Amino acid sequence: MRDVSIVGTGTTEFGVLDGGVKDLGSRAVARALRDAGVERPDVGALYVGNFVAGILEGQGAVGPIVADEVGLSGAPAMTTEGACASSGIALRQAQRAVASGEYDVVVAAGVESMTDAETPEFTRALGSAADRLTEGVTGLTFPGFYGIYLDRYMHEYGATREEVAAVSVKNRANGAKNPRARFREPVTTEEVVESRLVADPLRLYDCCPAADGASAVVLAASDLAGEFTDDPVEVLGTGHATGHNAAHRYADLTTLDATVDAAESAYAEAGIGPSDVDVVELHDCFTPAEIGDSEDLGFFEKGEGARAVAEGRTEVGGEVPINPSGGLLSKGHPVGATGIGQVYEVCRQLRGDHENQVEDAEVGLAHNLGGSGAVCTVTVLGRGDRR
Amino acid sequence: MRDVSIVGTGTTEFGVLDGGVKDLGSRAVARALRDAGVERPDVGALYVGNFVAGILEGQGAVGPIVADEVGLSGAPAMTTEGACASSGIALRQAQRAVASGEYDVVVAAGVESMTDAETPEFTRALGSAADRLTEGVTGLTFPGFYGIYLDRYMHEYGATREEVAAVSVKNRANGAKNPRARFREPVTTEEVVESRLVADPLRLYDCCPAADGASAVVLAASDLAGEFTDDPVEVLGTGHATGHNAAHRYADLTTLDATVDAAESAYAEAGIGPSDVDVVELHDCFTPAEIGDSEDLGFFEKGEGARAVAEGRTEVGGEVPINPSGGLLSKGHPVGATGIGQVYEVCRQLRGDHENQVEDAEVGLAHNLGGSGAVCTVTVLGRGDRR
Repeated sequence: MRDVSIVGTGTTEFGVLDGGVKDLGSRAVARALRDAGVERPDVGALYVGNFVAGILEGQGAVGPIVADEVGLSGAPAMTTEGACASSGIALRQAQRAVASGEYDVVVAAGVESMTDAETPEFTRALGSAADRLTEGVTGLTFPGFYGIYLDRYMHEYGATREEVAAVSVKNRANGAKNPRARFREPVTTEEVVESRLVADPLRLYDCCPAADGASAVVLAASDLAGEFTDDPVEVLGTGHATGHNAAHRYADLTTLDATVDAAESAYAEAGIGPSDVDVVELHDCFTPAEIGDSEDLGFFEKGEGARAVAEGRTEVGGEVPINPSGGLLSKGHPVGATGIGQVYEVCRQLRGDHENQVEDAEVGLAHNLGGSGAVCTVTVLGRGDRR
Repeated sequence: MRDVSIVGTGTTEFGVLDGGVKDLGSRAVARALRDAGVERPDVGALYVGNFVAGILEGQGAVGPIVADEVGLSGAPAMTTEGACASSGIALRQAQRAVASGEYDVVVAAGVESMTDAETPEFTRALGSAADRLTEGVTGLTFPGFYGIYLDRYMHEYGATREEVAAVSVKNRANGAKNPRARFREPVTTEEVVESRLVADPLRLYDCCPAADGASAVVLAASDLAGEFTDDPVEVLGTGHATGHNAAHRYADLTTLDATVDAAESAYAEAGIGPSDVDVVELHDCFTPAEIGDSEDLGFFEKGEGARAVAEGRTEVGGEVPINPSGGLLSKGHPVGATGIGQVYEVCRQLRGDHENQVEDAEVGLAHNLGGSGAVCTVTVLGRGDRR
């Protein structure tokens, strides 16, 4: 297996954008190709994560359609789907394809267009990430799932509502510095815990907003990276795992096996552990998700995550900066785009040009979760001159 | 790259079935695992092709959900989507993952549940395979596209309506022998050309029926195949290519570049040419598609395909038996399942136990097409003891 590097990145802002998935996806891919300076005939394949364009926009085959639109017709293109982890999967398939020697250069992207949808249609679309025959029919939405999760977490570990709200306070403060974020206004603990009730005990500011957006990266064999950039980001390791799709199958409601397993794979491939990670973008679709994820990824002991946030240990400048981009809570969550959007933010950090820079960041991690723990990808990235 | 073999197969019938994609997909995967005698912990990954479950059933993340249901939780699972070529793509990703040495054993599957849908919803779902912003908004459905295609083909090459109808006559006669086919009644040329007009000049019996169904195969490194079966089928080569998504971009309306390119890749990898193929399952979603595909795959010169069918050259016993299973026209087209459904039928042929056996079939080809030429996969398979 060959080492693989990211040699170009491109993204849209995340927010309320004009255009559907073809437009947005093509825009991000074109920007990434331009950033890498790669010629279209040299692109071996295109992997595009998308989740709900079929439901919301009546558009399938997003991968092939973006390929044709952006001038990559001919190259094998596909859509990868794993609910909100759709583009984390795209990245991993892309990495594998270069690592194996099949292609020298490929593109991985993610795209979603959601904000035009009416609420019932939107809820149905996102709800399709759950197992319809078990949780779906009960009416358990994702805010509902994470409400139960938060209740259980506070019960098990004695965390307070205010500690949990600190996730949103931190991420909104981070997002205020990120021009790509949908929400750029800070919030206070009081505003979070007093915001409108969504799914008890979850409040509005515990929940990430929807967004439209697309992100893309160009991957190349590391020994070719110098042809495209002076500033490559190495893909040190990736993990991809499934868990259970429904809460009744979990041994422990606040531990998502898919995250634990994907992290284990990614750390093993990278030859590092959680303590080696300098900057993290993880899947904070809801405030309790960030807390649980930070534990499942090995940054804190089980039950310590909420206190760690409240103590500022995950701020920029803290021991493990988490979501300096503002995370899903600030940037918004264009579901199919989120995974590669995270990778984009980590690349900016490792290249040292992020608007909310973690000093001397050399190793970064992106964590992308689909469903109520159904599927997860973890990507460990390293600065190209790190070694 | 290692050689890869299919060491187990499983399928449902294609037809009007109870259960949604979780049930059907799990059934096919479980049958394939049982056929291979593989233990679940030994399965490295699961790739599931699905196209419209999100739209029709409100079910996304089909790959992870099937994984959990069938006892493969933990293994990386994903959904691959490329419209009607969704599971052809799944198979190719699976082959690549074993060939590269990443996994020794993986499962590729395809699934769709469609027949419960009302007509407008069904039409919208299938129409999502087209580029919404160009063909979609014009109201060009897939029968419409292939009506135009057929008109052009007859104009260019002087083919007659009766020659084209011979595709359906042949495939329905073949399907009559296949217990897995939805339609098992033969039709005559007169019945085809006098059936209800759908999209002039296409008639009802020129069009494949919808169906529910799922198919799965277990793939293993060829040097391990003997652990699972005495009767492996070798994956000699695969191809995957995109073309244009809208007819106005085609240089030639009756040549689908995605098929030409995917076939070229697959033949090159297999080290064979079209004349070496003993049995073919190709994407006859409409009668003119089979004719054009048979030319794009290199079995006949451009413009010769219609006459070849009418002369019986593609019957079982003819020079290139095409769709001895009955094809999509008889079996039905559960879109996400079709690609691996074709591979299932070819495996039965190469193992010598098909109900409509092609004598001494040693090399087979499966051709799976998505959209109006947007994306294509071609899979070349060989009998394990061929060499």
